[in-house]
Amino acid sequence: MTIKNEIQQRVTRMQALIREKGLEGAFFIFPIDVYYFSGTNQNAALWIPANGEPMLLVRKSLARAKEESAIPDVRPFPASKDFSGLFTPVLRKVGLTFDVVPVQQLNVYSKWLPGCEFVDVSALIREIRSIKSPFELEQLRHSGREIGRVFSQVPQFLKAGMREMDLAAEFEYRLRKAGNEGGVRMRAFNQELFLGVAVSAGGAAHGAFDGAVTGQGLSSASPYGSSRAVIKENEPVFLDYTGVFNGYIADMTRVFVLGQLDPDLVHAFEVSLEIQAFLQRALKPGAICEELYFKAAEMAEQAGLGKQFMGMPGEQSRFVGHGVGLELDEWPILAKGFKDPLKPGQVIAIEPKFVIPGKGVIGIENTFAVTDAGGEKLTDIPDPITFLSG
Amino acid sequence: MTIKNEIQQRVTRMQALIREKGLEGAFFIFPIDVYYFSGTNQNAALWIPANGEPMLLVRKSLARAKEESAIPDVRPFPASKDFSGLFTPVLRKVGLTFDVVPVQQLNVYSKWLPGCEFVDVSALIREIRSIKSPFELEQLRHSGREIGRVFSQVPQFLKAGMREMDLAAEFEYRLRKAGNEGGVRMRAFNQELFLGVAVSAGGAAHGAFDGAVTGQGLSSASPYGSSRAVIKENEPVFLDYTGVFNGYIADMTRVFVLGQLDPDLVHAFEVSLEIQAFLQRALKPGAICEELYFKAAEMAEQAGLGKQFMGMPGEQSRFVGHGVGLELDEWPILAKGFKDPLKPGQVIAIEPKFVIPGKGVIGIENTFAVTDAGGEKLTDIPDPITFLSG
Repeated sequence: MTIKNEIQQRVTRMQALIREKGLEGAFFIFPIDVYYFSGTNQNAALWIPANGEPMLLVRKSLARAKEESAIPDVRPFPASKDFSGLFTPVLRKVGLTFDVVPVQQLNVYSKWLPGCEFVDVSALIREIRSIKSPFELEQLRHSGREIGRVFSQVPQFLKAGMREMDLAAEFEYRLRKAGNEGGVRMRAFNQELFLGVAVSAGGAAHGAFDGAVTGQGLSSASPYGSSRAVIKENEPVFLDYTGVFNGYIADMTRVFVLGQLDPDLVHAFEVSLEIQAFLQRALKPGAICEELYFKAAEMAEQAGLGKQFMGMPGEQSRFVGHGVGLELDEWPILAKGFKDPLKPGQVIAIEPKFVIPGKGVIGIENTFAVTDAGGEKLTDIPDPITFLSG
Repeated sequence: MTIKNEIQQRVTRMQALIREKGLEGAFFIFPIDVYYFSGTNQNAALWIPANGEPMLLVRKSLARAKEESAIPDVRPFPASKDFSGLFTPVLRKVGLTFDVVPVQQLNVYSKWLPGCEFVDVSALIREIRSIKSPFELEQLRHSGREIGRVFSQVPQFLKAGMREMDLAAEFEYRLRKAGNEGGVRMRAFNQELFLGVAVSAGGAAHGAFDGAVTGQGLSSASPYGSSRAVIKENEPVFLDYTGVFNGYIADMTRVFVLGQLDPDLVHAFEVSLEIQAFLQRALKPGAICEELYFKAAEMAEQAGLGKQFMGMPGEQSRFVGHGVGLELDEWPILAKGFKDPLKPGQVIAIEPKFVIPGKGVIGIENTFAVTDAGGEKLTDIPDPITFLSG
């Protein structure tokens, strides 16, 4: 079975990194990490030893985990007093993903394994996950096709006079019927997102979300995404959505206009296409992540749009692309400080965008795979603004 | 402004608990906690000292946080080297919510505040949040009305031959248009849910979610909620959904049937209504949480349905109700081990349900407020199964 071999390779790769770090093994207890290394997303803890066979300890559902797991050794989660007995010799130094595991969990594992030192292995799994296998690339192509199909239907339901949230409802309805599984997963602490953002001119607003465009949202409790603002003619209608299929995320943005568009916005859109074209050509193994961001920011600056690039003036995000896969905020990130070279099989959402207060938000986003020939576009529908009669 | 007074009271309550614990203050950095104590859900850290004024340190968006915050002292998040300087005298012992704060965050705060001891204050905020103010009860009534209205529309769109996911799409579309803000928030580590569950007979399935009914989901990556199974006549169509409005969650379940229903399922439904009726009467201040669960389980047992109560036989959940508010899994929980008495203003989703493999899932769920007169039903549409012509 392909998925069994695939997961065996993922585990083997992790075991090499675990040995490099001088650990006896690592526990993965964050759901999507368990899924990545086992093929089942049941409530479980996965033990990957430096050598030998992994073990999946399942809280719920054991029956379903047994059915789905590519790891042969699936057991019920032991009672606290029996936990340490599963590991001989006694564990002294093991890994845990400190980026997503709450302090309470670390404390519980520390109690179960007295004398054991825990070491952060967040970077290891992010590194491994950043490179997609041919199987994963096929999943991501599928997600790209499905969400692209929904974007292609926007002209059928976008009307002047509807609220941003009505547009969101129409889009999300079709996305769901296409098989979208649920909310998009993010790894970073403190980041929340639902499915995406559908905004009109008022989308040029301040927000918590660490992206170019946040939206006003429906309340201060959920301050992102669509608002109750009514969509009018002659303004940019901006849809940035994610699609989650078999766990894999495609991320894209398109702009629609009922009528005509302000020349400043048209110009900004052209610049976003130029930046995207540059980046697509540059998405080859060896290119340095931060250099791609610097170049994109420089192109925006040279076009006279430096202060509008990637966010509200004064609160701009400092990146132009982010890895996607099982989570929306995977590695690599095209941002200052990311000095790593791109690698074949990395998948990156490229999203040069501009925020022009009073006029709206505009830009493009597509998900690309890094290849020797440059970025392979996984969200392959036309990029231009769709102009509709108002 | 009402919300300012409200938040002042919440902070004052927390300060009393902070002093009781002998702490100098507490940091709240989990988004919905920041929101509860400030009125803004921007990316920020909230410092609540044992005495005196709280301080909101904002990463993004400072502009929006200033606009929304009921805490007057709103500042940009300081540079690492300036962090400790904000606190004089030097902090020695402060609180942090270890249930939701990742280890990396604790380590960063420990570095910023050398020599400071951090203490878990998860229970304090859960305790305070479990009791809803009149303002919050009004929000919850609003959420209850809005989601109830969507449930009332189900007969308009439920048809034999549609897939569970099509039914989910129709329901979620109307929920979104009513103003549902996004995915439902859960606090527990390892729990994921989208908006709810719409399942047919195949809903009697094993799953990770810690509730009675999980659903198959669309893939092993997202193993909960609707599947591609086709809805047929003469089976229970079970909808368990949450609605999030102004951050506040109402949670309810109703059953619909196209045609007739198996007598075993009808019987189980009647038992669920009896258990609900008992619990509604019992939802008065002073009632002991676990005793309510024991009594509910006993009623199920006496009806010959002990092994079907609250989950798949062998993997049953051991609760019959859970607090709701800004999160779906608030306190109190009607489960073994919860020996606390109910308090006025607590809001609890009561959900006696039965899972009968091969036949389907059935039961009732409503959100109630604890009052001297028993449970006030916040999701006030009729409980009976809706029978439709097939």
